[in-house]
Amino acid sequence: MRILVVNVNTTASMTHAIGESARKVAAPGTEIIELTPDFGADSCEGNFESYLAAIAVMDKVLNYPGEYDAVIQAGYGEHGREGLQELLDVPVVDITEAAASTAQFLGHKYSVVTTLDRTVPLIEDRLKLAGLTDRLASVRASGLGVLELESDPERAVAAIVEQSRQAVENDKAEVICLGCGGMAELEARVSEATGVPIVDGVRAAVTIAESLVRMGLSTSKVRTYATPRPKTITGWPISQATRTVHA
Amino acid sequence: MRILVVNVNTTASMTHAIGESARKVAAPGTEIIELTPDFGADSCEGNFESYLAAIAVMDKVLNYPGEYDAVIQAGYGEHGREGLQELLDVPVVDITEAAASTAQFLGHKYSVVTTLDRTVPLIEDRLKLAGLTDRLASVRASGLGVLELESDPERAVAAIVEQSRQAVENDKAEVICLGCGGMAELEARVSEATGVPIVDGVRAAVTIAESLVRMGLSTSKVRTYATPRPKTITGWPISQATRTVHA
Amino acid sequence: MRILVVNVNTTASMTHAIGESARKVAAPGTEIIELTPDFGADSCEGNFESYLAAIAVMDKVLNYPGEYDAVIQAGYGEHGREGLQELLDVPVVDITEAAASTAQFLGHKYSVVTTLDRTVPLIEDRLKLAGLTDRLASVRASGLGVLELESDPERAVAAIVEQSRQAVENDKAEVICLGCGGMAELEARVSEATGVPIVDGVRAAVTIAESLVRMGLSTSKVRTYATPRPKTITGWPISQATRTVHA
Amino acid sequence: MRILVVNVNTTASMTHAIGESARKVAAPGTEIIELTPDFGADSCEGNFESYLAAIAVMDKVLNYPGEYDAVIQAGYGEHGREGLQELLDVPVVDITEAAASTAQFLGHKYSVVTTLDRTVPLIEDRLKLAGLTDRLASVRASGLGVLELESDPERAVAAIVEQSRQAVENDKAEVICLGCGGMAELEARVSEATGVPIVDGVRAAVTIAESLVRMGLSTSKVRTYATPRPKTITGWPISQATRTVHA
Amino acid sequence: MRILVVNVNTTASMTHAIGESARKVAAPGTEIIELTPDFGADSCEGNFESYLAAIAVMDKVLNYPGEYDAVIQAGYGEHGREGLQELLDVPVVDITEAAASTAQFLGHKYSVVTTLDRTVPLIEDRLKLAGLTDRLASVRASGLGVLELESDPERAVAAIVEQSRQAVENDKAEVICLGCGGMAELEARVSEATGVPIVDGVRAAVTIAESLVRMGLSTSKVRTYATPRPKTITGWPISQATRTVHA
Amino acid sequence: MRILVVNVNTTASMTHAIGESARKVAAPGTEIIELTPDFGADSCEGNFESYLAAIAVMDKVLNYPGEYDAVIQAGYGEHGREGLQELLDVPVVDITEAAASTAQFLGHKYSVVTTLDRTVPLIEDRLKLAGLTDRLASVRASGLGVLELESDPERAVAAIVEQSRQAVENDKAEVICLGCGGMAELEARVSEATGVPIVDGVRAAVTIAESLVRMGLSTSKVRTYATPRPKTITGWPISQATRTVHA
Repeated sequence: MRILVVNVNTTASMTHAIGESARKVAAPGTEIIELTPDFGADSCEGNFESYLAAIAVMDKVLNYPGEYDAVIQAGYGEHGREGLQELLDVPVVDITEAAASTAQFLGHKYSVVTTLDRTVPLIEDRLKLAGLTDRLASVRASGLGVLELESDPERAVAAIVEQSRQAVENDKAEVICLGCGGMAELEARVSEATGVPIVDGVRAAVTIAESLVRMGLSTSKVRTYATPRPKTITGWPISQATRTVHA
Repeated sequence: MRILVVNVNTTASMTHAIGESARKVAAPGTEIIELTPDFGADSCEGNFESYLAAIAVMDKVLNYPGEYDAVIQAGYGEHGREGLQELLDVPVVDITEAAASTAQFLGHKYSVVTTLDRTVPLIEDRLKLAGLTDRLASVRASGLGVLELESDPERAVAAIVEQSRQAVENDKAEVICLGCGGMAELEARVSEATGVPIVDGVRAAVTIAESLVRMGLSTSKVRTYATPRPKTITGWPISQATRTVHA
Repeated sequence: MRILVVNVNTTASMTHAIGESARKVAAPGTEIIELTPDFGADSCEGNFESYLAAIAVMDKVLNYPGEYDAVIQAGYGEHGREGLQELLDVPVVDITEAAASTAQFLGHKYSVVTTLDRTVPLIEDRLKLAGLTDRLASVRASGLGVLELESDPERAVAAIVEQSRQAVENDKAEVICLGCGGMAELEARVSEATGVPIVDGVRAAVTIAESLVRMGLSTSKVRTYATPRPKTITGWPISQATRTVHA
Repeated sequence: MRILVVNVNTTASMTHAIGESARKVAAPGTEIIELTPDFGADSCEGNFESYLAAIAVMDKVLNYPGEYDAVIQAGYGEHGREGLQELLDVPVVDITEAAASTAQFLGHKYSVVTTLDRTVPLIEDRLKLAGLTDRLASVRASGLGVLELESDPERAVAAIVEQSRQAVENDKAEVICLGCGGMAELEARVSEATGVPIVDGVRAAVTIAESLVRMGLSTSKVRTYATPRPKTITGWPISQATRTVHA
Repeated sequence: MRILVVNVNTTASMTHAIGESARKVAAPGTEIIELTPDFGADSCEGNFESYLAAIAVMDKVLNYPGEYDAVIQAGYGEHGREGLQELLDVPVVDITEAAASTAQFLGHKYSVVTTLDRTVPLIEDRLKLAGLTDRLASVRASGLGVLELESDPERAVAAIVEQSRQAVENDKAEVICLGCGGMAELEARVSEATGVPIVDGVRAAVTIAESLVRMGLSTSKVRTYATPRPKTITGWPISQATRTVHA
Repeated sequence: MRILVVNVNTTASMTHAIGESARKVAAPGTEIIELTPDFGADSCEGNFESYLAAIAVMDKVLNYPGEYDAVIQAGYGEHGREGLQELLDVPVVDITEAAASTAQFLGHKYSVVTTLDRTVPLIEDRLKLAGLTDRLASVRASGLGVLELESDPERAVAAIVEQSRQAVENDKAEVICLGCGGMAELEARVSEATGVPIVDGVRAAVTIAESLVRMGLSTSKVRTYATPRPKTITGWPISQATRTVHA
């Protein structure tokens, strides 16, 4: 089985970290292909960047030349999953939903701990549309940007541990979802500090994608995610234009 | 006062119809500037096209060379409004929300009548995020595509009237929102057939945008819609790349 | 266009302040007629007084001898709007709903800051029925009564600023609605202290009423707000009885 | 124990029917005092009449010269209960809430069958504020006015039976609340036709009022229903003015 | 009238306290029969024990040799009420629901104060299924186990008073439900400390059961609580097996 | 990896069918151990039987002598999962939740098609507590009992196909969950008739259990599902007593 794991930002080192995390949980025989969008922001921390990522991810996946069995959109709280579901016949799994869905099997309530406060409403909105907020205790922000997770990991860990602890003690979360594609390596640290299960969205998404493929299930095409109707689309794919311009 | 009214698809005739509709209700002294995106689909009838429109609208507005006091995103149930709010300092009004918000002043429950059944979930999701579903009686589809509104207006009117009538009788709607940027001219017909007020999103949005400007109010910048953080963005604006390629 | 702006209490100075506030945002050509009920409490701070105001406002409007195009009920969290909608053919706008509806175009979540704690549940209930609570961050009370806004303005401002600040910082409000007809002049002070947009219900209601009139829209009469059925009503209008008695 | 049962309309025969119904279930030693408002409509079928009734009921109760242990507001879906709670120290029970609350002990979901379609939203709103809609299957209208229950009882019974049957079969109601103060005698007929328990609001309210008194419980006065603050109220009580005028 | 009041744990002294509390509010002529399950835990403080209690209560009631008019399940937040409703023709009242339902007649919002934090989610879930959470301010835990209520009453009272006070001040509760079958005697203490009405579930349940019987109402049998279909059940009643083993 | 799959009824042939279904999707190296409770009903079609099953499943699992990595409770809409989570350290997956959780990755809305109408509220309640109803289109019943699935498969298939078709067409479901442990073989038939993905709860649960184990995740023990406190439990385990009696 081959799964495309697509980063939402253009930072290749982060794509690589996501890919490595995915491989740690992938079943024998599952090949993880990591992809970085050709355009967009080097980190997604708001709606503008997230909408751009939505299109960049679709563009990247549609231009992938090989075959694959499932796609994982590896951005926390980002737009775009519904578009991929329309365009593809294979299952599409968003890591925000994968983490929340997995957390609900582990405790009565769960919290998400993410980076910047400004991204909290994006995550809340994504979970609201996914119908996964009834058991959401809180979405908390560490106050550190996505790229600081790489540049100052110790400070990032401390801030995330603190918010996770508060989620458990004050918000009564029994499970913590790490709300950022680049946070996968923090699991052990946060788990030790809080005593609750920590769910990493990328890993959760890999197991869900594998499960769907194994059961022979894919996106329903009868209504919301039907293949787009044939029509005139100007300037698409964008990557073709972008690449030409860059040359 | 100058208001940009941006179509979400690339069909210029529809942009023009939207502009004309907007002008009918604009106050004296309000200038309506109609804009058509440089790329994207000739009609938006699903998530893929809607996400593309989100970016194309931002791209078009950011490249608009003049000054303006407010922006109206004239697509029903489309993505993107939050991104525009981040990028701009002036008020941004989405016609889906403008129509629903206006309808709530006119009756106990309202319905939306739109084009294709596949777009119903998009509209429902947009209204859900906007917090405007408590008094939503139903979103109904006429079964005709966006462009058929122009090509076969009589059949379109009949189908929309029929769904509106059912919304009033079966779903207990007391107000109907016409759920498509191109439906503005249908108001009289549907109103006559159902006996309830008909709200056109474009017109509602114009009055709301004018009101916000007159009160000196604009998007809050303290959290969700704060200006994007400075960062490296590859391949943006897209229109520049697209135009070059087209040349 | 002529708009009746009806105070809910019998304090004439407050009616005048409301009228002046309304005029500041009214379009050229809009005439604001301010009305004070003939009976009821000199300030509304609970359900008993609010129910009395509901009837007093209807009584006053029905007895208004001139013509008018819309009515604004200028009390925060008060009963009665639905009754006016049944009795009148012109649009009726409640300032509680007008403020909330406007705030939702400006930020992800909004709070209301009002006077006494005991009126908080009234406002919450009104917003609940209006379907405007999904994005409500909180309703907070300054602890000062309606009339203290006039008698000790400095203390009132300080208390309101403090609650607004807490709404933004703790409750994550991005917009503040000033929850009292008499608070209109506080806008600048609160806005400066919090950095978020401040919505005054009276002004918001004026622009909404004007917009509805301009679009030719009024209350739907098919069900909830149909004209009352003809029947025997004893002791109505109340003002006639009251006036006679007073003479 | 003495319980005031206050009709919401001015039709004395209906007051008497309500009183008789109340007495059928009252415990030995409970005295039922039936009261008819001094002003208002001869039947309440909308918000205007309901708001008028709210005040008329408060006016009547406040002017009652004797002592009493509890008050029942015997109107289905009417305004005013919160005001009575503020004004009185004894328990106040609304029949709409009493019926729903009782129904929830008898089945998984319940429906309300009332008179006119236009009163359905009033009942829905009252139940919404009372927090009793999670298990509400539907509110259905027989299409007959309040006074037709008295003038054409056979037709009224047939229409109510038919709506009750549909509530059970289509809406999956397991209990029916008869949504009108004057419907008490229909119980046997509807129960026989549907096979489900039928709850009459007046009777339910009597048992609840008795229970609260027996447990020594009454309205909490710490916040929402605190006694009104002392202030100047013009033209109250209304009945005094009205009576003088009538003289 | 004879009412069975069934404890959910096997501690006979607690059963007796519950019975005494019930008798204090029972009407003249109502006989309270207190029952202790034959198997299960000596206190229920979690799902395992609660599920066991569900079966033990059904087992005990089914084996009760005499006649009775209603059954009260006297455990706070415990499983099982729906099963009893299927098995019996007489009304079944759960004290969790009885308390909440009663509290809603007394204040705008109510809180539950219970024993251990781990039982809070059980109570929340029971109230959620009962459709009684809209006006629930909070469920708070004193941190003391069920049996400590008997062994160290002073400390228990102090802890419960403190949580009740916080519920009123911070969570805006206007009524407190004592969330434990063994807490009945605390009423006076907590009421004095908080100034709000205190509802004891057992007493509330007695009055509700009496009321249902007096109105001739019992569980609807058309769907959810229909009598179990005839089928082969192995090892039931459990008490028969258990007794044999014990011998 | 070894997974216990526990039937909720005592019908061994159904246990075997469930086990076979589980094995079809189990990963290489996963051993499926199927278990039948020692007591309870031969089919669960209501709350009484479901509560009995809850205890019987716990009893069976606790008495299982070997080691295992996860437990699947294979009953649709049944009680008991929370108790197992308290008692065990390994992950516990309920098939009702597994199916719904999986369906949400495949379409915008899903429906459940089950056996008898009387079990619909049980399934709805289970999904409500699991926080999985926001995207639930409907729970529909075929009208055939659990055991008829085995005795008259053709008629069962026809009825289930018909309800599934209605779920898609009328309720707008895009995915169907087969709401019964014994329905696994129907997948192909229903899928063909409706054109939407069909989710079998047992298979979904197997993949989820495997995924949790592979990620090293298990039930959070900090609050709701903490290990039961040590206390005196009479008559437990029940199977020991029951077996003795049977001898």
